[in-house]
Amino acid sequence: MANSPSGESVIHRVVRILAAFSDDTPALHLRELARAVGLPVSTVHRLVAELEVEGLLVRDDSGRLRHGHRMWEMASRGSRASSLREAALPPMEDLLNHTGNHVSLGVLEGTDVLYLERLAADDATINITRIAGRLPVHGCSAGLVFMAYAPEEEQERFLSRRLEKLTPDTVTDPDQLRGILADIRRNGYVSMAGIIVEESSGISVPIFVEDQHAVGTLTVIVPRGEEHLAVTIPQLQFAARAITRRLGYEPTARGMQRRSEPRPR
Amino acid sequence: MANSPSGESVIHRVVRILAAFSDDTPALHLRELARAVGLPVSTVHRLVAELEVEGLLVRDDSGRLRHGHRMWEMASRGSRASSLREAALPPMEDLLNHTGNHVSLGVLEGTDVLYLERLAADDATINITRIAGRLPVHGCSAGLVFMAYAPEEEQERFLSRRLEKLTPDTVTDPDQLRGILADIRRNGYVSMAGIIVEESSGISVPIFVEDQHAVGTLTVIVPRGEEHLAVTIPQLQFAARAITRRLGYEPTARGMQRRSEPRPR
Repeated sequence: MANSPSGESVIHRVVRILAAFSDDTPALHLRELARAVGLPVSTVHRLVAELEVEGLLVRDDSGRLRHGHRMWEMASRGSRASSLREAALPPMEDLLNHTGNHVSLGVLEGTDVLYLERLAADDATINITRIAGRLPVHGCSAGLVFMAYAPEEEQERFLSRRLEKLTPDTVTDPDQLRGILADIRRNGYVSMAGIIVEESSGISVPIFVEDQHAVGTLTVIVPRGEEHLAVTIPQLQFAARAITRRLGYEPTARGMQRRSEPRPR
Repeated sequence: MANSPSGESVIHRVVRILAAFSDDTPALHLRELARAVGLPVSTVHRLVAELEVEGLLVRDDSGRLRHGHRMWEMASRGSRASSLREAALPPMEDLLNHTGNHVSLGVLEGTDVLYLERLAADDATINITRIAGRLPVHGCSAGLVFMAYAPEEEQERFLSRRLEKLTPDTVTDPDQLRGILADIRRNGYVSMAGIIVEESSGISVPIFVEDQHAVGTLTVIVPRGEEHLAVTIPQLQFAARAITRRLGYEPTARGMQRRSEPRPR
């Protein structure tokens, strides 16, 4: 009943229609939309009419379709993404103010890191992350942190995938990656230079809420060669633990051990 | 074809299911969800299975359903809400740092103001706005600013509605409201005391992108009696114009005239 003659469900079609809008194409005419999703104009017209009734799509003054605020509202309520974002924002601001570098917040989504938030320092280095943008796990320091604390099966799946060289410095060799993941677990952070953009380094730490896997990662992007790890890492870890607390958890002993230096008692 | 035997469309049912999750109930068991939307468990089960395939719902460790990150991602891309939020965030941070008061960003959504962002000063006064929360247009200073710059028909519709007294200070009299809207257009801001929470005042200014209607409002919430308008208003207007610029527009002459003082040339 919910399926079209072609067997594709209404839900899948609706998702494809809504996902056709992006930062690059935030507004589409009906025909452009139909072309983008590869469905007949008449079909798209009917579904769009229903989505307009729900407020998920709206028409602008020029007659083009856009996501309605309702879409954003529904997604923001009850979303783990949005509670993590809200908890992370003040410590991220502090980090931006103290370091003057780009700061981003990532979550793991399949084989990508999805960036929930990014605070940009106007005059800092190139930062290709954007809000609701994705980078492949092996192409960003945040992704390597997620892999370091992922369940073993997931790590093995990751290490057995064929990984693309995104720059000459992207690490794709399984043994070398295995070493990096072990270092991350020992040190509690990673600093990777030029693995996605040649002139920048990403420095990431995990955000824990329980004594297990990272729920998020906090990253600063700095010009290559200006990592200043002795200063940057404690600030990152301080901010990550502030986020853990703001999410209602106490940073655990194991979380603490993940700092690069042993903690004096 | 897309309709159930009861005539309710699949899209409408899906929206009701997704909207059942909120900040108060971010995770629901299937039976709780079915109860919340008033549909048979079998129906909800079938739709939920499809939504899980799309990544819009996910199951947590305890088997409860939640919004997936995919939901948030889809809504964040191509959304005017999210580009306005992104443009507004740095000036809002500056405002929070300078004033030490709650700062919020609103958009008009039907007869409500929908809050896209809220930065909280830890030790400031009560602020009942929350991210993706709503307040009725007549119950917040932001709403009155939207009405002041709304098309005339919309203003008349607003003034002819029966408005609820939310506190003893909520203004519901059409003539008095008409006067307030005229003042806003003349002064470029409004300061309302106690219209939704007795101990707080809201001070709002419009954010313009073209020489017409407000696309957003910027609000600070202060303890009643501590409005300090001579200081607060220029800061708010400065931030609102910074947001306009960050959205890629020049604040227009008419937008400028909306300041409370004439601008020296």
